[in-house]
Amino acid sequence: MHFSTETGHPTLADLFLTPPAAVESSALDAIEQAADRVLGEIGIRFQDPDSIERLKAAGGAVEGDVVRLDGPGLRRIIRASAPERFLLRARNPARDTPVGGAGAPVFAPVYGAPDVLADDSVRQRGTLGLYERLVAECHLSPALGNTGQMICVINDIAEADRPLQMLRAHLSFSDKPFMGTVASAAATRDIIDLTAQAVNRPAAERECNLLHLINCTPPLTYWESPLQCLRVVAEAGEASMVSSYMMMGATGPATAAGALIQGYAEVLAGMALAQLWRPGAPVVMGILAWPFDMRSMLPNFGDPVSQSIQLHAGALGRRLGVPVRADGAVTSAKVDDAQAGADGGRVLSAAVSSRAGFVLHAAGWLEQGRCISIDKLRRDAAMISRSCFPAALPCEPPLPLDAAIDAEIRDRLSGGRGRGTA
Amino acid sequence: MHFSTETGHPTLADLFLTPPAAVESSALDAIEQAADRVLGEIGIRFQDPDSIERLKAAGGAVEGDVVRLDGPGLRRIIRASAPERFLLRARNPARDTPVGGAGAPVFAPVYGAPDVLADDSVRQRGTLGLYERLVAECHLSPALGNTGQMICVINDIAEADRPLQMLRAHLSFSDKPFMGTVASAAATRDIIDLTAQAVNRPAAERECNLLHLINCTPPLTYWESPLQCLRVVAEAGEASMVSSYMMMGATGPATAAGALIQGYAEVLAGMALAQLWRPGAPVVMGILAWPFDMRSMLPNFGDPVSQSIQLHAGALGRRLGVPVRADGAVTSAKVDDAQAGADGGRVLSAAVSSRAGFVLHAAGWLEQGRCISIDKLRRDAAMISRSCFPAALPCEPPLPLDAAIDAEIRDRLSGGRGRGTA
Repeated sequence: MHFSTETGHPTLADLFLTPPAAVESSALDAIEQAADRVLGEIGIRFQDPDSIERLKAAGGAVEGDVVRLDGPGLRRIIRASAPERFLLRARNPARDTPVGGAGAPVFAPVYGAPDVLADDSVRQRGTLGLYERLVAECHLSPALGNTGQMICVINDIAEADRPLQMLRAHLSFSDKPFMGTVASAAATRDIIDLTAQAVNRPAAERECNLLHLINCTPPLTYWESPLQCLRVVAEAGEASMVSSYMMMGATGPATAAGALIQGYAEVLAGMALAQLWRPGAPVVMGILAWPFDMRSMLPNFGDPVSQSIQLHAGALGRRLGVPVRADGAVTSAKVDDAQAGADGGRVLSAAVSSRAGFVLHAAGWLEQGRCISIDKLRRDAAMISRSCFPAALPCEPPLPLDAAIDAEIRDRLSGGRGRGTA
Repeated sequence: MHFSTETGHPTLADLFLTPPAAVESSALDAIEQAADRVLGEIGIRFQDPDSIERLKAAGGAVEGDVVRLDGPGLRRIIRASAPERFLLRARNPARDTPVGGAGAPVFAPVYGAPDVLADDSVRQRGTLGLYERLVAECHLSPALGNTGQMICVINDIAEADRPLQMLRAHLSFSDKPFMGTVASAAATRDIIDLTAQAVNRPAAERECNLLHLINCTPPLTYWESPLQCLRVVAEAGEASMVSSYMMMGATGPATAAGALIQGYAEVLAGMALAQLWRPGAPVVMGILAWPFDMRSMLPNFGDPVSQSIQLHAGALGRRLGVPVRADGAVTSAKVDDAQAGADGGRVLSAAVSSRAGFVLHAAGWLEQGRCISIDKLRRDAAMISRSCFPAALPCEPPLPLDAAIDAEIRDRLSGGRGRGTA
């Protein structure tokens, strides 16, 4: 943590960073060894022939759509080329954010909420108008270094148009970095191209413009679309956040140790595949798991077992040399009450202590993520600012979007849509 | 953290403990060296001639009531005899709790609240009736291993009678361990004697019956009464929680590093003095600091800078080989809202991550500790149970208090009061 009130004896500078959680290396060894057994004896299902071929060429043993893999070999592939830290760039160079390394994490808002609770406390389905407002809110918040993606679902726009509409909102109402789409391989490529035009600076090694949420579908499966998106993203030199988001007792083991083992096996395979498509492609590792309540049939967001899992995921990532993802102020609470506060405060503490590089769902989350609240987004952002943001960026309006790019997006949305999403 | 849902691969057992915060040893070196300069060049004010004599005999340089001390020497004294772990015993041996070492911390309720918010949400001045109810609440909570002391102020009883009335409440409405009084040296001795009768088992080395809150009065001063109590406590082989509770910018430096340095110097002196009075007397180290808001003239409980201070205090204590104190679910919020939840959740996370041995103010705290809420006590206790309590103790009524001891307390309260508090 950095604190602006510090006036600083230089030899004490390291005091102002939250110490990382010190996990026993024997525990990490045990997780790695068990994950290697899962990879070698059970394998991972890849629902995409190209990915299977690529893994086979790298030594994987293919049987149907299951590939049995060599864990230590995957770690060697990742360590050989995946960057420990990379620069996620913005339309406004002053807003570029490093991801990974020793600094404070990058915080991004909720991803994927169907509903929005606006500040008149009326809950409504997400719309384009609300989406634009949410991007503007995130832009104004010094705590949020990234305006995310699919902050809410845009229910009033045809699904095929949503990636471009979201792009236009992120580019028009903010000049901070944001996340890419994974709606389809074609849409992913489309958004990568347009964003590159908007950023309009040549990218050096370990620099990119978009971070993409590439989800494994636990247990031990990658679906076709995320695999195709992963390839597009990696080959473009853009960043993938390869994540296993487990429901403990449903899509993952009920125990913390079991979830760590399964999740680590899953994300090792995905991150190595990204390196095989293009060595050096930035990846962020996410191993997240929440207990699943068999009575409510809902995950129990905020349960402390997940804090322990996050602390271990952070240590596994440091050992591997890749930035790590964390959850932010998540909760199962339906309103922003003491439970929401306590859950979010503890999960945020674990995110910071785990030395995560990127915190998704950092602010605004209510009710298992089914709703984003603008009031809570502001409260969570204030908590993040007080907790670990080194220095507030000046709160300025975004630079105006280049008219040609705006016209290009509008053009693709009306007549020329086929070009992008065909 | 331990989770009862774990079924456990034994080699993964260490997964289920929250990793301690890993503080850079260079940062700890810097704090120690700076504290040694404070001790050696400025010294500590002791407002008690006996304490000054004792420190002088151990090599301190006395000038008026200020004693300049040798920091490395104080650490040697503490390391030579203070236990890393001790057993705090109860009237019911099944309720004995270890303090320090690798297990979960002991959690105790708020200490010192003038007001009580009972569950009809009416705020009232603390009374004996409410005190008894608070002890019973703490007894019923599996999260709280200790029923504390002065949970609320007993405003309806004469001050001189309060230590005995509190003792009677802790012994009658619970059979868990509790804390001693520091109202005066005589009262401290009185309560130690009566508690020993109630526990009624010979104490081995590193076993005691009461933990006493011995406060430094920062900056760099110990008042007369805590010093006299410290001597009584140590000579009886009972435990002292030697604490510096700083208001950053008022009674301590405004920076985290400065507060750690001042606080460490202060508690080193107090803990060493306890060892000089009786080598081996159990001590718990508390370095706590909250930013002081010059506009409201109130401390800002819940500010994240204090989490960082706690993590470093934990590491300093491990290095010294003594158990460490932490704050629990504290907040500046006046009601148990999202702010109270978030503040408490984060402070509790830091307490657990710092590997504290004893968490005071763990549950019930509202409004800078000026009020204890029974509803919040229950909510905080539930959060603690979910966060880090290994196994719930059976929730049973307390063993009946021995009639002779009850009669003895009653006797001292009526006619024979002079015996105890003279």
